[in-house]
Amino acid sequence: MITVSVVGGSGYAGGEVLRLLLSHPDVRLQQVTSQSHVNELVAITHPNLRGRTDLVYSDLVDLESCDLLIVSLPNGLSMAKMPGFRKMARRIIDLGADFRLKKPAVWEEWYQTPHRQPDLLSDFIYGLPEIHRNVIKKADLVAGPGCEAAVSILSLYPLIKNRLIKPENIIIDAKMGSSQGGNHFSFASHHPERANVVRSYEPTRHRHEAEINQELSINGESPRVFVSATAIDMVRGLLVTIHTTVSGNLRETDIWQAFRQEYGSEPFIRIVKQKQGNYRFPEPKILSGTNYCDIGFELDQSTGRLVVIGAIDNLGKGTAGNCVQCMNIMFGFPETWGLEFAGLHPI
Amino acid sequence: MITVSVVGGSGYAGGEVLRLLLSHPDVRLQQVTSQSHVNELVAITHPNLRGRTDLVYSDLVDLESCDLLIVSLPNGLSMAKMPGFRKMARRIIDLGADFRLKKPAVWEEWYQTPHRQPDLLSDFIYGLPEIHRNVIKKADLVAGPGCEAAVSILSLYPLIKNRLIKPENIIIDAKMGSSQGGNHFSFASHHPERANVVRSYEPTRHRHEAEINQELSINGESPRVFVSATAIDMVRGLLVTIHTTVSGNLRETDIWQAFRQEYGSEPFIRIVKQKQGNYRFPEPKILSGTNYCDIGFELDQSTGRLVVIGAIDNLGKGTAGNCVQCMNIMFGFPETWGLEFAGLHPI
Amino acid sequence: MITVSVVGGSGYAGGEVLRLLLSHPDVRLQQVTSQSHVNELVAITHPNLRGRTDLVYSDLVDLESCDLLIVSLPNGLSMAKMPGFRKMARRIIDLGADFRLKKPAVWEEWYQTPHRQPDLLSDFIYGLPEIHRNVIKKADLVAGPGCEAAVSILSLYPLIKNRLIKPENIIIDAKMGSSQGGNHFSFASHHPERANVVRSYEPTRHRHEAEINQELSINGESPRVFVSATAIDMVRGLLVTIHTTVSGNLRETDIWQAFRQEYGSEPFIRIVKQKQGNYRFPEPKILSGTNYCDIGFELDQSTGRLVVIGAIDNLGKGTAGNCVQCMNIMFGFPETWGLEFAGLHPI
Amino acid sequence: MITVSVVGGSGYAGGEVLRLLLSHPDVRLQQVTSQSHVNELVAITHPNLRGRTDLVYSDLVDLESCDLLIVSLPNGLSMAKMPGFRKMARRIIDLGADFRLKKPAVWEEWYQTPHRQPDLLSDFIYGLPEIHRNVIKKADLVAGPGCEAAVSILSLYPLIKNRLIKPENIIIDAKMGSSQGGNHFSFASHHPERANVVRSYEPTRHRHEAEINQELSINGESPRVFVSATAIDMVRGLLVTIHTTVSGNLRETDIWQAFRQEYGSEPFIRIVKQKQGNYRFPEPKILSGTNYCDIGFELDQSTGRLVVIGAIDNLGKGTAGNCVQCMNIMFGFPETWGLEFAGLHPI
Repeated sequence: MITVSVVGGSGYAGGEVLRLLLSHPDVRLQQVTSQSHVNELVAITHPNLRGRTDLVYSDLVDLESCDLLIVSLPNGLSMAKMPGFRKMARRIIDLGADFRLKKPAVWEEWYQTPHRQPDLLSDFIYGLPEIHRNVIKKADLVAGPGCEAAVSILSLYPLIKNRLIKPENIIIDAKMGSSQGGNHFSFASHHPERANVVRSYEPTRHRHEAEINQELSINGESPRVFVSATAIDMVRGLLVTIHTTVSGNLRETDIWQAFRQEYGSEPFIRIVKQKQGNYRFPEPKILSGTNYCDIGFELDQSTGRLVVIGAIDNLGKGTAGNCVQCMNIMFGFPETWGLEFAGLHPI
Repeated sequence: MITVSVVGGSGYAGGEVLRLLLSHPDVRLQQVTSQSHVNELVAITHPNLRGRTDLVYSDLVDLESCDLLIVSLPNGLSMAKMPGFRKMARRIIDLGADFRLKKPAVWEEWYQTPHRQPDLLSDFIYGLPEIHRNVIKKADLVAGPGCEAAVSILSLYPLIKNRLIKPENIIIDAKMGSSQGGNHFSFASHHPERANVVRSYEPTRHRHEAEINQELSINGESPRVFVSATAIDMVRGLLVTIHTTVSGNLRETDIWQAFRQEYGSEPFIRIVKQKQGNYRFPEPKILSGTNYCDIGFELDQSTGRLVVIGAIDNLGKGTAGNCVQCMNIMFGFPETWGLEFAGLHPI
Repeated sequence: MITVSVVGGSGYAGGEVLRLLLSHPDVRLQQVTSQSHVNELVAITHPNLRGRTDLVYSDLVDLESCDLLIVSLPNGLSMAKMPGFRKMARRIIDLGADFRLKKPAVWEEWYQTPHRQPDLLSDFIYGLPEIHRNVIKKADLVAGPGCEAAVSILSLYPLIKNRLIKPENIIIDAKMGSSQGGNHFSFASHHPERANVVRSYEPTRHRHEAEINQELSINGESPRVFVSATAIDMVRGLLVTIHTTVSGNLRETDIWQAFRQEYGSEPFIRIVKQKQGNYRFPEPKILSGTNYCDIGFELDQSTGRLVVIGAIDNLGKGTAGNCVQCMNIMFGFPETWGLEFAGLHPI
Repeated sequence: MITVSVVGGSGYAGGEVLRLLLSHPDVRLQQVTSQSHVNELVAITHPNLRGRTDLVYSDLVDLESCDLLIVSLPNGLSMAKMPGFRKMARRIIDLGADFRLKKPAVWEEWYQTPHRQPDLLSDFIYGLPEIHRNVIKKADLVAGPGCEAAVSILSLYPLIKNRLIKPENIIIDAKMGSSQGGNHFSFASHHPERANVVRSYEPTRHRHEAEINQELSINGESPRVFVSATAIDMVRGLLVTIHTTVSGNLRETDIWQAFRQEYGSEPFIRIVKQKQGNYRFPEPKILSGTNYCDIGFELDQSTGRLVVIGAIDNLGKGTAGNCVQCMNIMFGFPETWGLEFAGLHPI
C-alpha cells in the first residue's frame, strides 16, 4: 500500500486520476490539492465520485510527504514548483508539458518561453510504457506524454522502427473532443458555439509535433511529422488519421507483422482491423474510461499509401490511465491494476 | 420601406432578428447597437451573416430615430431605458421580460425587484399574434412573449377557451436547448459540462408561469399551470409536453375541432398528429430557423388524460420570428414576409 | 464460483450483462446464446469486449445446465421458453417484461396478448432489491424491472409509503435515450432521423405504468400514475421528472427524512440535491456504466408542488446492473461485487 | 416560369431540391417520383414541407414532359434510364455519380462495373459553376459533382491552376455527417451505433478521387490527390482538411491573392480566415441549408506546409443547392434565386 497525493486535482485529468486511484487495490489516496477549491468536497467538482470519497481539497502549502506525487498543473506552472515537489516525494509523475522535451532549446522553440528548470529535463523519463517500460521501472521522475503525442507515437513506432514507411511528409490529422481543453471555460467552449462544430483548431504547428519527433528519432534522425487538429462535437476521445507512404512494395501482412511483433504482449494495445461490423477500425467512443490504445490501418497497394488510425480516450491512455500504468510499473504492481474497466457499448 | 434599428444586437435573439430583417423586402436595417462590440463588424459575432451585411455595431448613445426599434436587452435593463427609446421611435417591440406582465405586483412577485416603469405596463400589448392580432395592428408598444410561454399559451389556448380541459394541475414539462440561455458563457455552459445533459433546470417556479396564467385567464379566472424545465443537449428548439385532464367525456375529434376552429387560418401554426412516420408529433429539430409552432396531442380516453405537445424554435416563434411577425402586422405588411424559410430535413 | 449463462446475449442489455459478469470475481461465464450470431465471436457484436473474452455465441439448443440463467429476450419470447429454461438452471433472472406483472389480466390489458404461462407469474419475484431484498435472497425466479419502472418506483416509494404525496395525478415525464429500444434498427433509428430529436414517443399509456402501479400499491390501493416518454438525442441514460402534490403542509426536510430513512444504507441510491455546482440534481450522463439510481427533488412550498427527479443508466440500474445486484443477493455475494465502476466525468 | 420534375424525390438530396424549388420565384414544381412512396404525400417523407406543398409522389411511368428533369437516383440506376429521361426533357441535371466521369475506363476502375451509356459521358457537363459556368450556360445535360469532390475541387482549384502547391501527395482528410449516406438505414446507421462516432469510413481509395483528379488536371497532368473519409456525429455538413506543400517560398498573401482573383465575384464562395472569434476558419455547422462553400487556409512558412480548409453543406453546395445554381445558369435566371437562405447561428 503506497500513499499518493495529487497536485491540481480539480481539473479533468486530475479527476480521472482520482477515480482510478480510488479503485486501486494498493493505493491510499492521501491528499488532493486545488488552488480555487480548498476545503471543498472533491465530489462536488467530480460528481461521479459522490459516495466514493469524502476527501476535501487541500491547500498546496499543506502538502505532506508521500510515496508518489502526481502533478496535474497547467503548462508552465509545474516547472517552477518542481524543486519543492521533490522534497515531498521521491517519485513524481508530471502530467503537463513542462518535462516532456529533452532539450531546453526545443522547449523554447515550441512554447515560446525559456525553461526555468533546464537541468531537470534530462532526469525525467518520457512516460510511455510501451516504448520505455524498462527505464520507467527504475525512474523517480516521469513526464506523461501529451495525448496527441501518445496515440501518434504508438501508432507510428513499429513502422518507423522497422523502416516500413517513408520518414517524410507524415500527416497526422487529429480529431479531438472538448475535454482536451480542460475545465477552463470561455466563449469558444460555450455550448451553443462549441456544439456541432468541426472546428479547425490548429491547422499547423501543433506543439505535440515536438514530442513526436523526439520519440520517433532513430539514430538521431527524426521523421518529418505534421500534426493538424480539428475539434469535433465529442467530449472525450481522440482519433488520429495518419497519412503515410510505405517504403517499398509492402503488403498488409507486413504491417500486421510489425505491429504484432512490437505490441503482441502489450495489455493496452489492440490492433483493430476487422472485415465486417460497425467497428472495423479504432473508434474512440468505446474507449471512454479505458486505458486502451486501439490501432488500425489500411494500405492501398496500388499507390503505396498507408493510412494508420489510432484511437484513445484523451483522459485515459492520453493522460490519467497512462499515468496509473506508469505508477504500477514504477512500484512493481501488476500493470493493469486499477485499469480493468473494459469500456461501454453502446455509448 | 421602413427603417428598423436593433438595440442589443450582438446576442442570439438579436442576431436572429438581424438575419430575418436583412432578407425582408420592405425593411431597411438602420443601426444595430451593442455594449461590448461597438465598431466591430456584425458578421464577426454572427458568422452566418458574412457576405450579407457590412454593418458595424453602433454605440447606444448614437442611436438615431427610426420607424421601429427592436429592443433585445437582458431582463431589467430595458425598463430603465424605455423612456429614452420612445423618443427615438414611435413603435417599439421589446423582446425581454420587462413589459410582458400587466400588473406590477406580479412582476415583483416573480422577478423579485420593483418595476421601474409600472405606468408603462398597461401600454404594452402582449405580442402573440394568434391571440392578440387585432390589437397588435394598432399597437405602438409590443412585448414579445417568453419562449416557453409562447408555445405553452398557443398549445393550451383553444382548450382553455373552449373549456375542454380542467383548469387545475396543468403540468408543462419543457425540454430546452442551450441557446435559450443566451450568449453569456459560464462553467455551466462549458461544453464538457453541458454536452449530453438531461439537466433539471427549474423544476418548480419557472417565471414564465406568470405570463401563461395571465394570458390564459378567462373572465378573471386563471388556470393553475406549473412549468418545469429540463435542459437537454440541443442548441436550438423547445418542446413542451403538457399533461392535462379533459373535462368530460371527450374524444380526439373534439380536440381536433377546437384547434382547427381557432387556428385553421393561421399561417404559422400546424396541427401535427400523424398515424405513421418518424414525425408523428411536433419535433423542434425540423423547426430551426422557422416561425412555426407545431402542436399535437394524444388522448387516453380510458383515463381522460390529454397530453398536448408543442414545439417551436426558441429563437424563431419563441423570439425573433414572432417579433418579425408582429412587425409585419403593425406595419400592414403581409404577415409571412421575411419568414418564408421552411426549415430543414434532415438536420 | 458459480456458472452463469446468458440467453440472448447479442443485444445491448445482454452485452452489458456480459461486461459485468466478465469482471465479477465469483462468476464463470459459461455460455452466451444468440439466434443470429451463432459461432461468431462475442467481441464482434460487443466491441468493448475485445481482448476480454474469446467466447463465441452458442445456439440455444446447445444450452447446458448452469447455476444461473440470465434471459434477455424480446417481450413475449421468454414466456414460451421458460419451462425449458427451468430444466437448465434452478435460478433464473428474466430481464424482459413477461414475468413482471403478477396478474394475467393486467398482462393482457397492457400487452394485448394472452399470457402463455399464467401459473408461473406468482413464482417470479419483482427484482428490485431496495424494495424486495429479503425475498430476492431466497428466490429462484426473478423478473428484472423495466427501466422506467425501476427509476420511477425507487423515486416514489418512500413518498408513497409514508403518504407524503397525494396518490392521484402523479405525472412521470421520462426522457430516454436510443439504447432503450435495443439493437433492432429501423428508419426511426436511422441517425439522420434520430439525431437531435425531442420525440414524443409514448405520450400516454406507457406499459411501465402497470408495473409502477403494482409495486406502489399499499394495502391494495394503487396510486394513479401516468407515464409519458420522450426520446432525446442520447444513447444511454434515463431521467424521470415526476410531478406530484404533497399531502399537507410539508417542508423539504420532511422529504429528505423519508428518503434517508428508506435508503440511508442502500449502496446504489444517492440523494442528489446540491445548492450549487453543475450537478445539483440527478444527471444520467455521469451514471453511464454504473448501477446508481440518483434521486433529487424540489418542493414549491407556496403551491405544494413537489417535483421528484430520478436518473439511472437504462442499461445499468435499469437492466444489467440491477440484474447483477439481484444475482449477488441470490447467491450471497457482497452486493456491490462487479458493480464497482464509479462512472465518468466529464463525458 | 419553367416546369421542373424531380425523379427520386423521397431521398435526402431530392427533398432538399424540393425545398429549394418550392421557394423559387420562377419554377413550377410539376412532378416528384418515388419508387416506394407512390401516391403518398411528399410532406410525410419531408416533414419540413408540411403546409408548403400538397404534392403526392408519382410513379416513374407517369412522368410527363417538362422543361427540366432533376434526377436523384442511387448510383448505377440513372445511366440505365437516361435515354428514357431524355425523351421527357431537353434539359437534365443528374445528381448521382453516373455521368460525372468523362472516360468509361475511369468509371469502371472506380465503380467496378461497366458503364451502360459510355457514349453519353462526353455530353454531360461537370456541374461546378465556379469552374464551368460558361459551358453550363449552354448545356442540356449536367452532372452534379460528388460532395467531397465539390468542396475539394473548389478549395484546390486556384492553387493548382496557379501552380502554388506541389501536385503530389495532396491529402484530403474529409469529415462527414450521416446524411451523406442517404436515407437507406442499416445497423451501421442505427443511432446507438452511429452516435458519438469518429469512424474511419474510407481510409483509402475514396471514389471521389477520380472526379477530383479529372477536374484538377491541367494540360493533361493530374495532381496526385488522396481522399480519406471519417464519419463524425453530425447529420449535415462536410469539412475537408487538405494537407499540401507550397511550391516555393510563398507567403499567406500569395494564397489570399489567388483565391481573391479566382473567386472575388463568386456569390457562393467566401474566404474565411479571421484573426479572432470562434469562427476563424470555415465551419460547416453555420452552412446548413445554404449554398456556400467557405474556404480558409493556414501556411506554416517555416516548413512550407499549407493546410487548406473547405466547408459546405453536403446537401447544399454539395448537392441540391449547387443543382439549383446550375439550373439558374442554364435558364438564365439570376444565379442566387432560391438560394438566399443565409444559414443559422447558433445551431
